[in-house]
Amino acid sequence: MDLASAIRSNERLKRLFWQGKFGLETERLRVDSKGCLAHSPHPAGLGSKSEHPFITTDFSESQLELISPPMDSLESARGFIQTLLNVVQSELPEGEQLWPQSMPCALPDEEQIPLARFDGDASGRTEYREYLSRIYGRSRQTISGSHFNFSFLPEFFELLSRETGLAEAEVKEQLYLKMVRNLMRDRWLLVGLLGRSPLAHESLHLKELVSGKLIPVCCKHGVSIRCSAIGYRNPESLPADYSSVQNYLDGLNALVSAGKLLNPNELYLPVRMKTASDGKTISHIELRIMDIDPEDPTGMPLDALRLLHLGVLFAALKDENDAFEWEQQIEADHLQNQIACWGFSEDATAFCEAQPNPGSSLRLQASELFDDIERRVFGAFPVAPAPYRQSFESYRSTLEDWNNSPVNKLKQGIETQGFIPYHLQQAGSHALELASESFKFHAFTDLELSTQLLLKAAVRKGIQFEILDRKRNFIRLNRGAKQELVIQATKTSLDRYSTILAMENKKVTKQILREHGIATPAGRDFNSPEEARSTWPLFSGHAIVVKPMNTNFGIGISILKSNTDRVLFDSAIEAAFREDQQILIENYISGREFRYFLIEDQVVAILHRVPANITGDGRLSIRALVERKNLDPLRGKGYVTPLERIALNAAEAQHLKSQGLNFDSIPAEGETVYLRENSNISTGGDSIDFSDRIHPSYARVASAAANALGVKITGLDMIIQDIDQPANADNHSVIEMNFNPAIHIHCHPFQGENRRLDERILSALGFI
Amino acid sequence: MDLASAIRSNERLKRLFWQGKFGLETERLRVDSKGCLAHSPHPAGLGSKSEHPFITTDFSESQLELISPPMDSLESARGFIQTLLNVVQSELPEGEQLWPQSMPCALPDEEQIPLARFDGDASGRTEYREYLSRIYGRSRQTISGSHFNFSFLPEFFELLSRETGLAEAEVKEQLYLKMVRNLMRDRWLLVGLLGRSPLAHESLHLKELVSGKLIPVCCKHGVSIRCSAIGYRNPESLPADYSSVQNYLDGLNALVSAGKLLNPNELYLPVRMKTASDGKTISHIELRIMDIDPEDPTGMPLDALRLLHLGVLFAALKDENDAFEWEQQIEADHLQNQIACWGFSEDATAFCEAQPNPGSSLRLQASELFDDIERRVFGAFPVAPAPYRQSFESYRSTLEDWNNSPVNKLKQGIETQGFIPYHLQQAGSHALELASESFKFHAFTDLELSTQLLLKAAVRKGIQFEILDRKRNFIRLNRGAKQELVIQATKTSLDRYSTILAMENKKVTKQILREHGIATPAGRDFNSPEEARSTWPLFSGHAIVVKPMNTNFGIGISILKSNTDRVLFDSAIEAAFREDQQILIENYISGREFRYFLIEDQVVAILHRVPANITGDGRLSIRALVERKNLDPLRGKGYVTPLERIALNAAEAQHLKSQGLNFDSIPAEGETVYLRENSNISTGGDSIDFSDRIHPSYARVASAAANALGVKITGLDMIIQDIDQPANADNHSVIEMNFNPAIHIHCHPFQGENRRLDERILSALGFI
Repeated sequence: MDLASAIRSNERLKRLFWQGKFGLETERLRVDSKGCLAHSPHPAGLGSKSEHPFITTDFSESQLELISPPMDSLESARGFIQTLLNVVQSELPEGEQLWPQSMPCALPDEEQIPLARFDGDASGRTEYREYLSRIYGRSRQTISGSHFNFSFLPEFFELLSRETGLAEAEVKEQLYLKMVRNLMRDRWLLVGLLGRSPLAHESLHLKELVSGKLIPVCCKHGVSIRCSAIGYRNPESLPADYSSVQNYLDGLNALVSAGKLLNPNELYLPVRMKTASDGKTISHIELRIMDIDPEDPTGMPLDALRLLHLGVLFAALKDENDAFEWEQQIEADHLQNQIACWGFSEDATAFCEAQPNPGSSLRLQASELFDDIERRVFGAFPVAPAPYRQSFESYRSTLEDWNNSPVNKLKQGIETQGFIPYHLQQAGSHALELASESFKFHAFTDLELSTQLLLKAAVRKGIQFEILDRKRNFIRLNRGAKQELVIQATKTSLDRYSTILAMENKKVTKQILREHGIATPAGRDFNSPEEARSTWPLFSGHAIVVKPMNTNFGIGISILKSNTDRVLFDSAIEAAFREDQQILIENYISGREFRYFLIEDQVVAILHRVPANITGDGRLSIRALVERKNLDPLRGKGYVTPLERIALNAAEAQHLKSQGLNFDSIPAEGETVYLRENSNISTGGDSIDFSDRIHPSYARVASAAANALGVKITGLDMIIQDIDQPANADNHSVIEMNFNPAIHIHCHPFQGENRRLDERILSALGFI
Repeated sequence: MDLASAIRSNERLKRLFWQGKFGLETERLRVDSKGCLAHSPHPAGLGSKSEHPFITTDFSESQLELISPPMDSLESARGFIQTLLNVVQSELPEGEQLWPQSMPCALPDEEQIPLARFDGDASGRTEYREYLSRIYGRSRQTISGSHFNFSFLPEFFELLSRETGLAEAEVKEQLYLKMVRNLMRDRWLLVGLLGRSPLAHESLHLKELVSGKLIPVCCKHGVSIRCSAIGYRNPESLPADYSSVQNYLDGLNALVSAGKLLNPNELYLPVRMKTASDGKTISHIELRIMDIDPEDPTGMPLDALRLLHLGVLFAALKDENDAFEWEQQIEADHLQNQIACWGFSEDATAFCEAQPNPGSSLRLQASELFDDIERRVFGAFPVAPAPYRQSFESYRSTLEDWNNSPVNKLKQGIETQGFIPYHLQQAGSHALELASESFKFHAFTDLELSTQLLLKAAVRKGIQFEILDRKRNFIRLNRGAKQELVIQATKTSLDRYSTILAMENKKVTKQILREHGIATPAGRDFNSPEEARSTWPLFSGHAIVVKPMNTNFGIGISILKSNTDRVLFDSAIEAAFREDQQILIENYISGREFRYFLIEDQVVAILHRVPANITGDGRLSIRALVERKNLDPLRGKGYVTPLERIALNAAEAQHLKSQGLNFDSIPAEGETVYLRENSNISTGGDSIDFSDRIHPSYARVASAAANALGVKITGLDMIIQDIDQPANADNHSVIEMNFNPAIHIHCHPFQGENRRLDERILSALGFI
């Protein structure tokens, strides 16, 4: 059975065919506010560029290379790059931006382009860059692009091996080789559709570089200078042997021996097969034909990534008529040059070589390829995910109105605004867009916000990670030999199991705190309503709180500030027992509640929560003010953002009514109106950083409490009567200690600065 | 308002009146198999007698003193003593027993009675014993008894203070002083009813001791030699001042200054007030009038303890007509002597003093006291617990048939069998009864068995403890400055929180084990039934297990040993998804399952579980064999014993039927018949210790697994194909690691020895 038929032979294989590991890489120049190449060093906040697994420099010190690990989906691979871009941006010096175009920004003189600087053990990398400068020129090396890495899952080859009767290694090599050959043959189509570098800045001196006539043609109809003969290429086309992995590697080595390349990596093939650590088996395929799309914040729209994936899958299914030897390789190179320089244009006059206009011929060939993809991929795999079909159709329709194709519109945009202004404007708007969701890790939006932030900090600091169980926010961080398991961002190896269980148990926590002289609400616990009710003589006339032993979201809690009505007392007990088999009656402590976040006995952040509210301007109604406040990207719905939108529902209407207001009331300028009584973030409350605003004696109480329990990471809730007065025996009370406190509320509060708890946890774990 | 009325003034106080802290102490001589005082040293397994908080020696090296901490109920205080007795017994040298009588066993010559030996800092204690020997004689100091300690709860005094308007300290002193005075006055009744030392062994030479005529009378009608004038007493009656605590203490000190006593403790009052650590306020009241009851395994029947408690409560309520000064004190002492020597006997001839027979007069007074107790205690407190009423009535009825009173029956028993044989027989039967439930801690039978065992080991080793949350089996152990929180016996500070969460997560555990080259069942997890069903091509023809990700008691698990039927495969997936949102399909590994218990990487016990079974004798039916097997005290119902009784229900009938058997079948001699397929202990399975029976290579696998996760305490389940063959890649598999493994199954297995995991955990925690 041939491979394409085998893949279609059972449902499991058909399903696995659409799965895989996806990795993305992208290069970006750093530019100053004028669009000139930045001369500052690689940002220090991004750690060591020679060891950082995700963020390093490419050829130039001002050329970043961002790398995603292999991900389970295109979306998450792109999300990873998106977050890397945001991380890099947040570390850029004031005024710098990331250049959103494959063709370089305004470059200085050739020798002024800084090479990436590596010290110590990595200094060999700088030497290699000096070699590249001599061979290719520095400016050409600053041309940037994005790479797409793909592999099928192990189970796919396991099953394919069963179906074909071939060994797994054999089937893998055969399939990947076929895919590489087919991708080399048909890559011109992808270049034609994904080319986004039709123009270059004058400082590149392209004419001088090639001293030829191709330039004006390219400028008029081309789609990708980067993928053209004058782009990022080896000085001459070099042959490769695609008959087996061994032959391919032997061929590469022969080129090195012959002095054509310094090392195998220097062969800038548009499609590369990459080998595993054994150096012999193919681990994945790399496509290097995607330009940076200036109109997308990541430079790589999902449509483009899906097209590349479709191309990869099609290459696995398509029949071959030749062995893709030197002659066919030359032909494929030629086709890439043609499409890069003319796109699918029909303008005959544009063509200045002595051959017929290739535009219509290429368009015809493209159309045939689209039909073939449709038949082989979508036809045979009805399980194809729907978005692929949409992306596919959108590219197919591009051909029919080529003048209005994205690349032609881009060209118009650039020509209208000018090369530098156009791209600077794009860079600015991308930066804003990326920053507005900087509380997220785009590859992992299914994780809790706290875990997203911790992972993001890890990525920033160059710490490797693995997600062991997504549903449970269970990750492993590692750098070198050091490994740490972290669950829900704050469950770590720093804490002892028994400490956690002590904190989880309110009764035990309270007892231990009291033994250490820390103020907690006095009270007692009860196992039966009769027993609790019989304490009326003890509690009557005292301000008390009646609550279930284990409570969430305040359910079952009653505050009796005077407690003079026995009926109310009894019904408060009843309400608490409805929630739990054990209840507490505690003295009521008045004051405001603050969340102290402690790491290793140190208070690292203090937060206060305020009920959902708006502040009037004397003009807008409460409804309009809520809607305006809800526009903040920090506010969302369903715990995917650090704050929740304020609702305009019955509870809010009721609370307004109790103040003689409704949604249409217009508060005076500066007047604050509360829409809820409770201060939970989940009902639209605001989080306000108080880290620097409370008398330091309370932080000492919090530290003593953490010490008493021996806990390393905790979120301690304290009631404080007056934050300006020092703590004494009667003016504060530790209400609760939480063993899994959220960190995102302290990193992205409604008011106040980011307290960087993500990095502080990494530091406590010994990574920073 | 007077105190008695105040106590009755509200429901809360009435309820609190019945509560309190109860502490018990008891002394026991160690005897050899002939009933002679043992000459062996205090058992080494009981730790340091000078530091042990619960088990020490009294006057003689062969006289143990067992002490319970203050407990919440009489039952648990007595249960504590019961467990202490069991602990001591398990450490006694072969042949030794505990003497169950207040009057001593066969004693050697006076100077041969060994004094308790204390070394080092505690050597002063030995010197004190030498002083006591000179004053009282050694044999008299070996007379043993039990002490009853009582205090009301703090809340009782808090509320009483509110009701009376007096300060709390004031109300407390007034009430306790009144109670002590009343108890001193009426103690003769308690001595009369609880006296159980009517006879003494000849080796005590009582005649010589007192050179008097009282002896024959006592032997005929007396109830308590110990509480009589010739018992354990100061050489002369000494006055005490009960008008205030200060006066009382001053009086004691005056006696010491006058050389009447070496220290205040030497005043052997039958009722003592004990002061708190401040030396000024009364902490509790101590009653020293209870003899050891030879017929009760603890020497202190619950009835007796309830009578003492009733006496204490009555003393709080009864009015006083005098100030209980020296004259009244002499009178009360006289009454105690009378009742000790004559009991309630009406035999006039027995009386050999020149005064009317006191028997009937005392009986009349007793009857009036009973009526008064009934009125003041039961009448005014309808909330009185029911058992008190029963105990009360049982003692009251004793008076009506005094010849058949318990003490008179005891006397007959002793006279019939002889003093030594009678008590040796009682000692033997008590030892058996105590040992049969040695898997329990009688004071804490509401806790899990594992926690009971850990506490028992702590008590054996003299480690203090506190139960912080009974419902959650949350305890704190401490010795000196060292403290450890322990939850459910195996959740400790030894383990890191992240390690526990890794173990709790099957997916993560498996991944980490595999990374370390440890055999686990290969497989994969699925989030949707469609995805799982689509793997048919992958798993068909392989032996597999389909199971929910999180499973208990085997629910939702299917084993498909050939997996050739797609319908079965699909329905196994469906069954697993009914239990969880995530399922696993794993390769099936054949073999027997063993539980490896590891502490700090070391295998400390290995257990195998076998389904409920009986072994035939060729005579009895399966039903009869099950009933016989169920007699084992290790078997109970509802997890209160290490094993569960085998049921004779539908499931068992069905399983027998599948073998062509029923409950009336008679298995051949030596034939083993299984009544269940599953091996759970909860359905009557047997636990069999295999610690020394498995090839050691598997223990190395288990240690490596514990190391891989970094876990300190774990119960690891491993499938092993052949326990005699060394481990290789294919003959075993680690199935699961449990972070809260039970220890009792390894301490009290059906077959095999006690692996003492309780002590090993204490040792890992650094206490031993």
